Amino acid sequence: MKKTIIAILAAATMVMAGCGNNGGKENGEKAKQASAQAAIENILNRKSVRNFTGEKLTEEQITTLLKAAMAAPSAINIQPWSFIVVDDDAIKQKVWGDNWQAEMFLKSGAVFVICGQTSSMRKPSGQPDAEPVKWENPFWYEDCSAAAENLLLAAEAMGLGAVWTAAYPVEERMKTYIDGLGIPEGTLPLCAIPVGYPAGDEQPKDKWDPEKIHRNRW
Amino acid sequence: MKKTIIAILAAATMVMAGCGNNGGKENGEKAKQASAQAAIENILNRKSVRNFTGEKLTEEQITTLLKAAMAAPSAINIQPWSFIVVDDDAIKQKVWGDNWQAEMFLKSGAVFVICGQTSSMRKPSGQPDAEPVKWENPFWYEDCSAAAENLLLAAEAMGLGAVWTAAYPVEERMKTYIDGLGIPEGTLPLCAIPVGYPAGDEQPKDKWDPEKIHRNRW
Repeated sequence: MKKTIIAILAAATMVMAGCGNNGGKENGEKAKQASAQAAIENILNRKSVRNFTGEKLTEEQITTLLKAAMAAPSAINIQPWSFIVVDDDAIKQKVWGDNWQAEMFLKSGAVFVICGQTSSMRKPSGQPDAEPVKWENPFWYEDCSAAAENLLLAAEAMGLGAVWTAAYPVEERMKTYIDGLGIPEGTLPLCAIPVGYPAGDEQPKDKWDPEKIHRNRW
Repeated sequence: MKKTIIAILAAATMVMAGCGNNGGKENGEKAKQASAQAAIENILNRKSVRNFTGEKLTEEQITTLLKAAMAAPSAINIQPWSFIVVDDDAIKQKVWGDNWQAEMFLKSGAVFVICGQTSSMRKPSGQPDAEPVKWENPFWYEDCSAAAENLLLAAEAMGLGAVWTAAYPVEERMKTYIDGLGIPEGTLPLCAIPVGYPAGDEQPKDKWDPEKIHRNRW
């Protein structure tokens, strides 16, 4: 009988060892696969959310969203992005009160306006000893778009909803943000992303289209 | 003694029940948090990888990368993107053989050239009964940039490496791809992303910079 108990205990211990992250090589591999799957599913599950409960975001949530955004790739590592986080109700009302999607912005937890610096000081290519000169950065909106997508994906992962609303290159939309938020010369708003707790039931669109794929040449 | 065995079995069953994904509400919540964490860490861990082993990608890997890319947001849901997947050695040599980063492209498992359609047919705003007219899409490169970022993040999740190399709006780079890959008029290459098995030890950059953040106004 004692042997039986020992055998049962041994079996239970093995089961317990196998179910955590400490369960050896096989389970390490499984955990890695689960993480990979989670990251890819998060990309596939991201959706545009336009209905929010009105609840504000915490500082921790805001920081996580911005960390994700700033982890984007950047041409020549210039990182031309800046972020204006708007959650003051009066400022939201001033900037978005007349917008055709006013309720979406006003009921979000915070609006992230992603801006880009359109030029940077840079040493001329291949001249490491030269003085830096002003360089019109043709990639600022690509870098900032990658930052925006990272922010949307982080929101999805955190159970929040978000939607990309474009500003650049539409003059009147950019002017609203430049005037309303005091964006300085040389910087342009790329987009405004309201983020908040979803109040509706928006679902991801299936955009898979094999006709968009070409192999080796168009 | 029988009672002892039953008690041990019951305890073991509870432990076993608690360690899978079927372990009730608390474990469901834990699994959700782990997935969220995995998705965000994947964003923070993404890095530019420029050294590859030369191993090709499988069809399944290529499909997963393209599914992630096509899950990007798109202004007015136009989905202006197209993808040329280049893994034929002769075509790689023809297009990238003279590139200053030739080895990076040639040793990648496949190069994904992300292209965008610069105009679309669209009904004039607020006129649902009107005939569609040609519309210059000012957001095509933002949509395609989001698709590019999704592809980079999926590569990271899959244990692959990748790097965004810009084409648009640099005329000579675009011409190389348009001529070399037969990209039709009205479509422009935004970027070329070599993806492959990392041969080096590239690490993510820490780009966190609180000075890039403004609260409520600049």
